[in-house]
Amino acid sequence: MKIDLEFAKNLLLERDNFNIFLHASPDGDTVGSGFALCTALRRLGKKANVLCSDEIPKSYSFITDGYEPWDFEPETLVSVDVADSKLLGKYEQKGSEILLSVDHHGLNREFAKYTFVDASAAANCENILKLLKVMNVEIDSYIAACIYTGISTDTGCFKYSNTSPESHIMAAEMMGYGIDFSEINRIMFDTKTRGRMKIEGRLMEQMKFFFDGKAAFIAVTEQMKREAGVSDDDLEGITSMPRKVEGVLVGVTFREKENGVFKISVRTHAPVDAAEICRKFGGGGHNRAAGCAVEGMTLEQAEKEFVRVIGEVL
Amino acid sequence: MKIDLEFAKNLLLERDNFNIFLHASPDGDTVGSGFALCTALRRLGKKANVLCSDEIPKSYSFITDGYEPWDFEPETLVSVDVADSKLLGKYEQKGSEILLSVDHHGLNREFAKYTFVDASAAANCENILKLLKVMNVEIDSYIAACIYTGISTDTGCFKYSNTSPESHIMAAEMMGYGIDFSEINRIMFDTKTRGRMKIEGRLMEQMKFFFDGKAAFIAVTEQMKREAGVSDDDLEGITSMPRKVEGVLVGVTFREKENGVFKISVRTHAPVDAAEICRKFGGGGHNRAAGCAVEGMTLEQAEKEFVRVIGEVL
Repeated sequence: MKIDLEFAKNLLLERDNFNIFLHASPDGDTVGSGFALCTALRRLGKKANVLCSDEIPKSYSFITDGYEPWDFEPETLVSVDVADSKLLGKYEQKGSEILLSVDHHGLNREFAKYTFVDASAAANCENILKLLKVMNVEIDSYIAACIYTGISTDTGCFKYSNTSPESHIMAAEMMGYGIDFSEINRIMFDTKTRGRMKIEGRLMEQMKFFFDGKAAFIAVTEQMKREAGVSDDDLEGITSMPRKVEGVLVGVTFREKENGVFKISVRTHAPVDAAEICRKFGGGGHNRAAGCAVEGMTLEQAEKEFVRVIGEVL
Repeated sequence: MKIDLEFAKNLLLERDNFNIFLHASPDGDTVGSGFALCTALRRLGKKANVLCSDEIPKSYSFITDGYEPWDFEPETLVSVDVADSKLLGKYEQKGSEILLSVDHHGLNREFAKYTFVDASAAANCENILKLLKVMNVEIDSYIAACIYTGISTDTGCFKYSNTSPESHIMAAEMMGYGIDFSEINRIMFDTKTRGRMKIEGRLMEQMKFFFDGKAAFIAVTEQMKREAGVSDDDLEGITSMPRKVEGVLVGVTFREKENGVFKISVRTHAPVDAAEICRKFGGGGHNRAAGCAVEGMTLEQAEKEFVRVIGEVL
């Protein structure tokens, strides 16, 4: 059942003994949401813990340091920034027991008993901040750092089109609590593992161009990953790389999977339709981002096929 | 003579026939400042042109497209985002004729007759916006895009420590005029030339690590620049790369100059003092960013010397 902010506030104020669930592969928004809410509830004299299917990356230690789980019998299950119970990972079966889901995904599956969704929020942390305010929780630099982190990470540091004027205004407000926002942004946006640096470098240097620079291809092979010592986790966002080159309208990333299958991501700029390209290979997606898979081809053959199809589209 | 906002406003409203000077090697803040002010003055029925020592890069075409210089005898010389008349480039000798300098650099050399400086502004465009408001200029999407561009570029898209709550609030306000801010940010932050992509890739792949990953070195040689087809202009910000690797406390960039001289940039994280390292080579700078030059050494010798000195400091 969908509820409003007031209803969500009353639920939180009436209940106690909270388990707050983050989504698996936690990002800054779910981490910020969960720890801000947990801290707020504890300050109100309640018992609350944060749970996540996956380990929270060390880069979030500025949020997680000092946090200790408390020992109590959980009664109220809450999820933050979780659109679907599947995203709870190993806690998926808890999905049906979640009393309150606070989320900003328009496509929230409403797995919880009560769902508060404001999809106009660029980050779920914006919803959490609104909730804390109506709950009369005093914001301090810790909570402000949590909220700022969620907003900053989910908007690509205010770069992407989901950023709203309200995202900026809330960020400004959080900065007023004396957070080290530039250090947060450095950790979130300007830090790479050595392996990521190596493989990214190799991909950038070996990028192939076609059609007078209108198309650019990169290929991530198993061997490259082994040589750089990276896993798939380290490759997040790599598919955005080819499209960053001046003049490129179609960026294609070939990723070799273990069994000789290639997963292919296509990213475009207007007017090229990424989904149209991927549909020719049995895939699909959106105008600017689509995907497909091919098998039974070498990388060279797959690239050749893509050059042919892109040639038709351009 | 330093003046306040009111004085600057009156000067602009009383005068006519403006030449507005940008700084050489124009960036988003000087371009945004100049074109916002020029447009505002023209709307007030005055004659105004924008002048820059260097060609304005094509990436700013969303600001410069549609601009035409007008034909009139200039009477009032203004500079925007220019801290020193030297930064006027080929117009340096005009420095003494500048009536009004609108700037945000605390170290403005006061070369103009009247100087309005607010150094608390992350971008000079913040000062321009304040000025346009007291001049009762109606903000529209064009002026808003100019102002947003200056704020966004001078703060690294709100990432760096110079960003103020006011930067965010002004950005939010400018977004209200329906600007395509995500496209502006894509052009400013997510676009690289093919040559830059190539040389950056090579530098990332060839990065050398010392002291268990606490120090990282890159070297830009003349040959690499030739092979990638890049000039020094394409290498802006390259020195920040080694310090981005997780665990690196000292990032060193060696840049070969034509005559066998190496210019060296050192970037550090606390507690390592970059200036202390560079002083040992006759250079200097700040705690986190310093520089020096060496000559009469091969790259290998220079690297060896830096390893030795950094070993003493770490």
